[in-house]
Amino acid sequence: MEHQEMSGKNSTQHHLIRYKEGLGKYTENMPELVHSFSEFTRHCFKEGEISEKNKQLMALGISIYSQDEYCIIYHTKGCLDQGASENEIFEAVGVAAAFGGGAAMSQGVTLVQECIQELNNPMH
Amino acid sequence: MEHQEMSGKNSTQHHLIRYKEGLGKYTENMPELVHSFSEFTRHCFKEGEISEKNKQLMALGISIYSQDEYCIIYHTKGCLDQGASENEIFEAVGVAAAFGGGAAMSQGVTLVQECIQELNNPMH
Amino acid sequence: MEHQEMSGKNSTQHHLIRYKEGLGKYTENMPELVHSFSEFTRHCFKEGEISEKNKQLMALGISIYSQDEYCIIYHTKGCLDQGASENEIFEAVGVAAAFGGGAAMSQGVTLVQECIQELNNPMH
Amino acid sequence: MEHQEMSGKNSTQHHLIRYKEGLGKYTENMPELVHSFSEFTRHCFKEGEISEKNKQLMALGISIYSQDEYCIIYHTKGCLDQGASENEIFEAVGVAAAFGGGAAMSQGVTLVQECIQELNNPMH
Amino acid sequence: MEHQEMSGKNSTQHHLIRYKEGLGKYTENMPELVHSFSEFTRHCFKEGEISEKNKQLMALGISIYSQDEYCIIYHTKGCLDQGASENEIFEAVGVAAAFGGGAAMSQGVTLVQECIQELNNPMH
Amino acid sequence: MEHQEMSGKNSTQHHLIRYKEGLGKYTENMPELVHSFSEFTRHCFKEGEISEKNKQLMALGISIYSQDEYCIIYHTKGCLDQGASENEIFEAVGVAAAFGGGAAMSQGVTLVQECIQELNNPMH
Repeated sequence: MEHQEMSGKNSTQHHLIRYKEGLGKYTENMPELVHSFSEFTRHCFKEGEISEKNKQLMALGISIYSQDEYCIIYHTKGCLDQGASENEIFEAVGVAAAFGGGAAMSQGVTLVQECIQELNNPMH
Repeated sequence: MEHQEMSGKNSTQHHLIRYKEGLGKYTENMPELVHSFSEFTRHCFKEGEISEKNKQLMALGISIYSQDEYCIIYHTKGCLDQGASENEIFEAVGVAAAFGGGAAMSQGVTLVQECIQELNNPMH
Repeated sequence: MEHQEMSGKNSTQHHLIRYKEGLGKYTENMPELVHSFSEFTRHCFKEGEISEKNKQLMALGISIYSQDEYCIIYHTKGCLDQGASENEIFEAVGVAAAFGGGAAMSQGVTLVQECIQELNNPMH
Repeated sequence: MEHQEMSGKNSTQHHLIRYKEGLGKYTENMPELVHSFSEFTRHCFKEGEISEKNKQLMALGISIYSQDEYCIIYHTKGCLDQGASENEIFEAVGVAAAFGGGAAMSQGVTLVQECIQELNNPMH
Repeated sequence: MEHQEMSGKNSTQHHLIRYKEGLGKYTENMPELVHSFSEFTRHCFKEGEISEKNKQLMALGISIYSQDEYCIIYHTKGCLDQGASENEIFEAVGVAAAFGGGAAMSQGVTLVQECIQELNNPMH
Repeated sequence: MEHQEMSGKNSTQHHLIRYKEGLGKYTENMPELVHSFSEFTRHCFKEGEISEKNKQLMALGISIYSQDEYCIIYHTKGCLDQGASENEIFEAVGVAAAFGGGAAMSQGVTLVQECIQELNNPMH
């Protein structure tokens, strides 16, 4: 909320910063809970028989279905960081839409696509 | 996101434009998937033994329960386009609230009502 | 759970009885909460500008989307009690599937159809 | 939507005002439904063998899990009004995260913490 | 599924055994993930400024809202193990119903109450 | 419901048959809607830049998160049919658990594992 006046950053970056700062503050008060959550999710997302890239695409699919804005942004970034192509991300939107219909489709064609554009053009 | 600087349009119109533009771009990459989705939803929402108006009201009820902002706006517009009265829309909010409690009520009294007002007064 | 040994009743009837008995017992301990809940839902589902039948069909659509077995059974019965045709119920399944995809479809083609059959043939 | 131009109020206050005004307008059209909903929720949240404070913390946990922005703000305020400490609120976020993972965590570390800050510093 | 033929055990016990055995088998293949999940949830549910009992009641409320059968059984047992009274459990059902309406109510008056009865009368 | 007396088939097979028969009956009444739904989901799940196998694993992850029993069974079978290893399925459960916590975990360690066992040993 308080970051909307920040200039020189796009909406995706604002969300990522807001989450990072919020997590930092929460960790000061709940260090063990956050540490154990990070350990847990690290094991969930690490390279295994499913690659890190495909786990990030799967995570994006679940995020779109669940309609959580932060997770959608976070895992769209995760997909790009792991080298996923735009088409792979679009196909993940499609799989989510088989479950979540119009709600999934609307998040996919707005937030996900805008997020790709902003992460690929960070100066905008 | 990138449309917030657009002037002369209200929030409902921004959302509808953002969805339309996003869908257009997504369709360029995934034409078959989008086409088959449109065909599917066309069959779901077309006039049958339940009228198109009552299907839009039902869709609005599910949208409010599921808390998807785009679907709420899209189907509030769909209800008005099919000639639903404000009271019919308010009653659909009520049915959704029997399932979704305060979360449904809060979307109904804010987003749905504001959306009706903005669609009925497009110059605001 | 404890009713599965009951003979001479089909699965739909078991669920309706189990809910009715459970609600009766809960009401003994929480009379005001149950009474006020009943008053609230009575106002949600009563005849208005939307008919009782269309409100029951809407409630069935939300129940299928939310995947609650008791609500699906309860509102399938509500639809039939209000004179809804099988086709109207099938169309409500279709609207729910536009939002809930395969999950909604699977509940609609199994539980809803079986429930119609059992309520129409109570001796089975 | 139409309140974003209001000055001198922070985001939490805008949401609370938007909900209050929306509910007022909805009540003009649906007085019985809103009155019976208020009666019902009053019985749900009143002091019992579980204290009002612990019911508000429980309501906050469910709100975070369900990701409804209005309910998160409303019940964060409810927790503070009932004298809950920041640590109690942070622990409620933790319980919600055991169910809702990263989606719950992201709402907890952003919206909930910002809401606490804004409610404790109403002039910001 | 394969345990339904087990004799001398009630439904609650079957579910608890099925979960325990399933988790044991899963842990053989995914030891680190399960261990880190257990550590995480241990931190979520441990005594803090909110008591273990109130955290279990909160967890039950979220479980009822989310409609997960295993979690409802697991945390009803957790509430009883921490000394929660039946009325406290009934009030937690009420708070969940303020969010989840009839779906929450139906789980509360059937599964939760049956679970209390079976856990208090283990020989049935 | 009416298939529980069938002998010589395990629970997974019963669910698959119940869904197949239900869908057949529904299709008689709603042929266009079902046909267009099948076309849509065929485009969602077909080989693309993401393989069919990884799309099935993604679909399983979303199914576990959404807690739909039919979809979990259907896509566990889909994963095995596409040659996914047990470990890949277990890792998909793990990714789902990062979002859905204990609810996802409980479905993964019971229903998913039992389903693998029954599909690999069809005579049981």
